[in-house]
Amino acid sequence: MQLRLLLGFLGILLIFLSLFMLFPLFFAFYYKEDITPLSTSFLITLVVGLLLFLFFRSPKRELRIRDGFALVTLGWITSAFFGALPFYLGHFFPSFVDSYFEAMSGFTTTGASVLTEIEHLPKGILFWRSLTHWLGGMGIIVFSLALLPLLGVGGMQLFKAESPGPVADKIKPRIAETAKTLWKIYILISGVEAFLLMLGGMNLFEALCHTFGTMATGGFSTKNTSIGSYNSAFIDWVIIIFMVVAGANFSLHYRFLTGKFKSYFNNTEFKFYIAVIVVSIVIFTIILRLHIYDNIFSALRHGAFQVCSIMTTTGYTTANFEKWPYFTQFFLVILMFIGGSAGSTGGGIKCIRIYILLKHGYRELLKLVHPKAVISLKMGKKAIPYDILQSIWGFFFLFMFIFVLASLAMTLLGLDIITSFVSVAATINNIGPGLGTVGPAENYAHIPVIGKWILIFCMLVGRLELYTVIVMFIPEFWKK
Amino acid sequence: MQLRLLLGFLGILLIFLSLFMLFPLFFAFYYKEDITPLSTSFLITLVVGLLLFLFFRSPKRELRIRDGFALVTLGWITSAFFGALPFYLGHFFPSFVDSYFEAMSGFTTTGASVLTEIEHLPKGILFWRSLTHWLGGMGIIVFSLALLPLLGVGGMQLFKAESPGPVADKIKPRIAETAKTLWKIYILISGVEAFLLMLGGMNLFEALCHTFGTMATGGFSTKNTSIGSYNSAFIDWVIIIFMVVAGANFSLHYRFLTGKFKSYFNNTEFKFYIAVIVVSIVIFTIILRLHIYDNIFSALRHGAFQVCSIMTTTGYTTANFEKWPYFTQFFLVILMFIGGSAGSTGGGIKCIRIYILLKHGYRELLKLVHPKAVISLKMGKKAIPYDILQSIWGFFFLFMFIFVLASLAMTLLGLDIITSFVSVAATINNIGPGLGTVGPAENYAHIPVIGKWILIFCMLVGRLELYTVIVMFIPEFWKK
Repeated sequence: MQLRLLLGFLGILLIFLSLFMLFPLFFAFYYKEDITPLSTSFLITLVVGLLLFLFFRSPKRELRIRDGFALVTLGWITSAFFGALPFYLGHFFPSFVDSYFEAMSGFTTTGASVLTEIEHLPKGILFWRSLTHWLGGMGIIVFSLALLPLLGVGGMQLFKAESPGPVADKIKPRIAETAKTLWKIYILISGVEAFLLMLGGMNLFEALCHTFGTMATGGFSTKNTSIGSYNSAFIDWVIIIFMVVAGANFSLHYRFLTGKFKSYFNNTEFKFYIAVIVVSIVIFTIILRLHIYDNIFSALRHGAFQVCSIMTTTGYTTANFEKWPYFTQFFLVILMFIGGSAGSTGGGIKCIRIYILLKHGYRELLKLVHPKAVISLKMGKKAIPYDILQSIWGFFFLFMFIFVLASLAMTLLGLDIITSFVSVAATINNIGPGLGTVGPAENYAHIPVIGKWILIFCMLVGRLELYTVIVMFIPEFWKK
Repeated sequence: MQLRLLLGFLGILLIFLSLFMLFPLFFAFYYKEDITPLSTSFLITLVVGLLLFLFFRSPKRELRIRDGFALVTLGWITSAFFGALPFYLGHFFPSFVDSYFEAMSGFTTTGASVLTEIEHLPKGILFWRSLTHWLGGMGIIVFSLALLPLLGVGGMQLFKAESPGPVADKIKPRIAETAKTLWKIYILISGVEAFLLMLGGMNLFEALCHTFGTMATGGFSTKNTSIGSYNSAFIDWVIIIFMVVAGANFSLHYRFLTGKFKSYFNNTEFKFYIAVIVVSIVIFTIILRLHIYDNIFSALRHGAFQVCSIMTTTGYTTANFEKWPYFTQFFLVILMFIGGSAGSTGGGIKCIRIYILLKHGYRELLKLVHPKAVISLKMGKKAIPYDILQSIWGFFFLFMFIFVLASLAMTLLGLDIITSFVSVAATINNIGPGLGTVGPAENYAHIPVIGKWILIFCMLVGRLELYTVIVMFIPEFWKK
């Protein structure tokens, strides 16, 4: 491990993070709130960042693969630590664990909250809370489109294999260039959404906060009852559309914006993603019309909202789906695991992996009927390389393994089975609201301290595509 | 499909089945009960069997692979149909679905019951109910040790790969010979258990019924409160030991009985199986001592019983584990999925597959640390062939896929999430008792009719190693 190099990088990260704290400071000024928590946090973060940068600045050296994993993991852990300062210093949360939980939930774009009362908080603090989503979301896009392919993990190699596109060395020769392009797209789309939300009646503060929550598939709201509190069909549909956009691969958005209008529908994962969403919405509309709503438009609107919110792993709500039929509740839990697309801000197992696992399962059945035939697994028109298949299989099993272990640990704290199971599902998949005592009308405040740490771990592990974090737990990682 | 050939085979199967109905008839005579239901069922089964055999007897022809799958699946479906006759004709069950559910639960060695009151039933009927377990258990051993390796499915090829042993063409040149050897072992071990249970105070009828339930990892009891009603530490420990024996690979028992005493501990799957059991028992003993029992011996005895019962997929109970801490309940659900060993009468995903999936997951992590190293997956000292790995990966994903779809279907019938989830887990893994409204103190009587059919399907699919049944659902199976 090149510790000096890592600490230097973390210094740069903290300097950037501190600069972003100036935005909520602006809102705190504007709304004439106490600026101490934010300004103190800004100074601490800036000074620590500068010190790290100055002391550990090292000659330009190549990051090795192991350092890459450590950097990403430490980056998120450190950001959440300093990001928790405004919450903690302002005494808005009962303890540092709670502040850290909220900040990690923000940066991992989970949106699980320990707040029982949101609207009492100062606007500056709420703005920072939502901004952590937006920063984390951007971080994940850069991570998954620019870094992961270089590390050889995840579904993105397949994206590269299927069609040459804007991934790492493909669109632009360098990570920095790729990152810049993605930033521009992210800001552009966010701007459009914020504008539309203001058209729908939100003020600038609310529009920006909810844009951050949508584009990062995060889910923090400034309202106690989330998007439901606006009770506006226009706002609901705007957010539905932008959640679906945020859950799609940002490389596709780049291509679309550069004039390749067909790129969405030449992409296998995108077609699968849209197909799952459409089929789910149809099923939900029927069930909700029969059991909950007395007209088809309400059933469609609330069905579509909850389906898209959970599937893209956003976690905004317009209805308390825990009062819906068991069937729709369980269906939503399944959608939690499918999740968004690779290269999006969404979490979960990801559509591309689920698609390939389904295809593989079917292929095994075909092999039984034709035992001597050689049937290759294809994605679009290209065969899927063996090492990528192995990586996906390993991912699926490890994901389930960690999911089950973490749920088991939650039951050890005395939580009931549904709450244990779904709180882990809602954090490892980076959704936010779950079922049981962490349902859409409740929050994570009552979870015991150890349980909060377990869920913080789940958020991180789910967000960083599992391997990135877990690899640090095997002894070989630490050997020279 | 060679339909004539299949019908001929089914005829032979039914003739054998009818002959086994003579045993419960003996008990019905002995206890001076109404013999009509059993004798009528015997005659119907025998006559249908003879007719099929005589009409569809065909010149000796080779079974093709597809016919093999169809024969096994149809064999179980047909046995359950005729096996349900005594239940239905005697009006002991409210409907034919219920009778069929009970018979399928018997032949698949599941042990899920729709009976609310067991002890009122005539002894002859109860004997037949337990005998279906024993026959199904034997059927599964022959299926998994003699047929599956020839079809190229399942974990048994690995067993062959690791150490040359008594599988299909290895111990004996022909399936028929292998089957005979396995029958002898099965009868021998059953005899020992029945003898010990009689020593523990059971009469011949009870000892045989509970031996059938143990050796087949079935779980039907003749008592309303299962093994708990005897309240005997001796009986509990005898059953614990024989459940563990029944959940181990019968090829190992064969080797042991032929003087190769070390064979158990040269076998990777067996070591893994025992390790999981021992670790689970230790954890359960601690938790139960802290929360439920006031002495360590009771904690150990009831912890060990429930762990071994669920892990081997038997389903006998000595305690209502639904009143235990959530942690132990959830732990038992995890053990349900691990299940017994390949080549045993146990169900579940099976230890060998779980072991390989764990190893594969770890290997993927190692590959991240050493991206250029070639790390082969080994079982004992031999590398695992690629096609077997693929088969196992496909199995795991398809298993989870069917499990989730079936649970979702159960919620559509209005059942709560825990009941839906665990009723499918308890049937697809061939356990019996679950949690929620199908807990150890309850039964499956209240499940809606469609739900019963879904669970019947789950029992069959879980029992026949998934592929055998599912392959018949893909269109290519039916093409010439």
